[in-house]
Amino acid sequence: MAHITLHNEFPGIVGLMAFRPETEKPLNDLAEVLLRGDSTLTRGEREIIASYVSYKNDCHFCHTTHGAVAAHHMGGDLKLIDDIKVGLSHTTISSKLRALLNIAAHVQKGGKHVTEEDVAAARKEGATDIEIHDTVLIAAAFCMFNRYVDGLGTWAPQENAAYADMGKKLAVEGYVNSITQPA
Amino acid sequence: MAHITLHNEFPGIVGLMAFRPETEKPLNDLAEVLLRGDSTLTRGEREIIASYVSYKNDCHFCHTTHGAVAAHHMGGDLKLIDDIKVGLSHTTISSKLRALLNIAAHVQKGGKHVTEEDVAAARKEGATDIEIHDTVLIAAAFCMFNRYVDGLGTWAPQENAAYADMGKKLAVEGYVNSITQPA
Repeated sequence: MAHITLHNEFPGIVGLMAFRPETEKPLNDLAEVLLRGDSTLTRGEREIIASYVSYKNDCHFCHTTHGAVAAHHMGGDLKLIDDIKVGLSHTTISSKLRALLNIAAHVQKGGKHVTEEDVAAARKEGATDIEIHDTVLIAAAFCMFNRYVDGLGTWAPQENAAYADMGKKLAVEGYVNSITQPA
Repeated sequence: MAHITLHNEFPGIVGLMAFRPETEKPLNDLAEVLLRGDSTLTRGEREIIASYVSYKNDCHFCHTTHGAVAAHHMGGDLKLIDDIKVGLSHTTISSKLRALLNIAAHVQKGGKHVTEEDVAAARKEGATDIEIHDTVLIAAAFCMFNRYVDGLGTWAPQENAAYADMGKKLAVEGYVNSITQPA
């Protein structure tokens, strides 16, 4: 049960957004521009960064939700969710994305954990300044979303399959004005 | 020097916002509603939470900026910035704010560090569900802002006095459409 009375049955951040629409809007606007706005990173790549950081923050709801969104963008196999848990051992990703995930992992620990060497390694694999910027901000944003969801003690479905519909909906419709609406 | 080429001389998050206006807007909208929107917490109290979490995240730019904003809201003495560093030993704050700062400190460590006892203690001091919600989200948001600022290696002025003008400007004008404009 959540630490506060939400007056709704929605899981994770969805229940919090229905409780507090004043903060829902900028949070959804941020997710939309970071994960779906114009970018040379694919939407699948950006959702993988989000899910990967959420796993490192031990946030089951965000990890599984964004893993399911990434899976929808990349062919639909929900096994991707579990592969993100083990550092993408079984999924073919670019060496650029692997270098960006290294940066994201360091952001998760704290901003000052990102080193010049991390950034140089990403640049060597072709990452641009905008891609490095967006990776840092996606990772930082999920350090917020994860703390918001777990800091208020929200509930979350356990099984990956329970996230398939939400993953598809978010992948297709995006984050703005859609999450707290019925599917 | 920042890890990426910003093409501007602004410090901290200001340089990042000028570099990437697409993400500037939702970030400023979030700060505006959390720190200045309608609330039973004063603007000074909310800025203290922001500055306190930023200090715990070792983010000098955010700690000092929001400490300066809090100082402007609460009479103007920049000594508040250093008192936030030592847990507000010399500033009179309510027992409710002290209980909310305890929640914020646990959010900073990770969402699951917030306990039912933390929440019950805040409620005993009169905190409402909305105040507890907003405290968690302010603390979580600064875990994002801090990582964004330091994860990209931005520069920051050292001395508290260098933040007085920005603290006043943000306290008076707010966060929307003002940060990257000349004072």
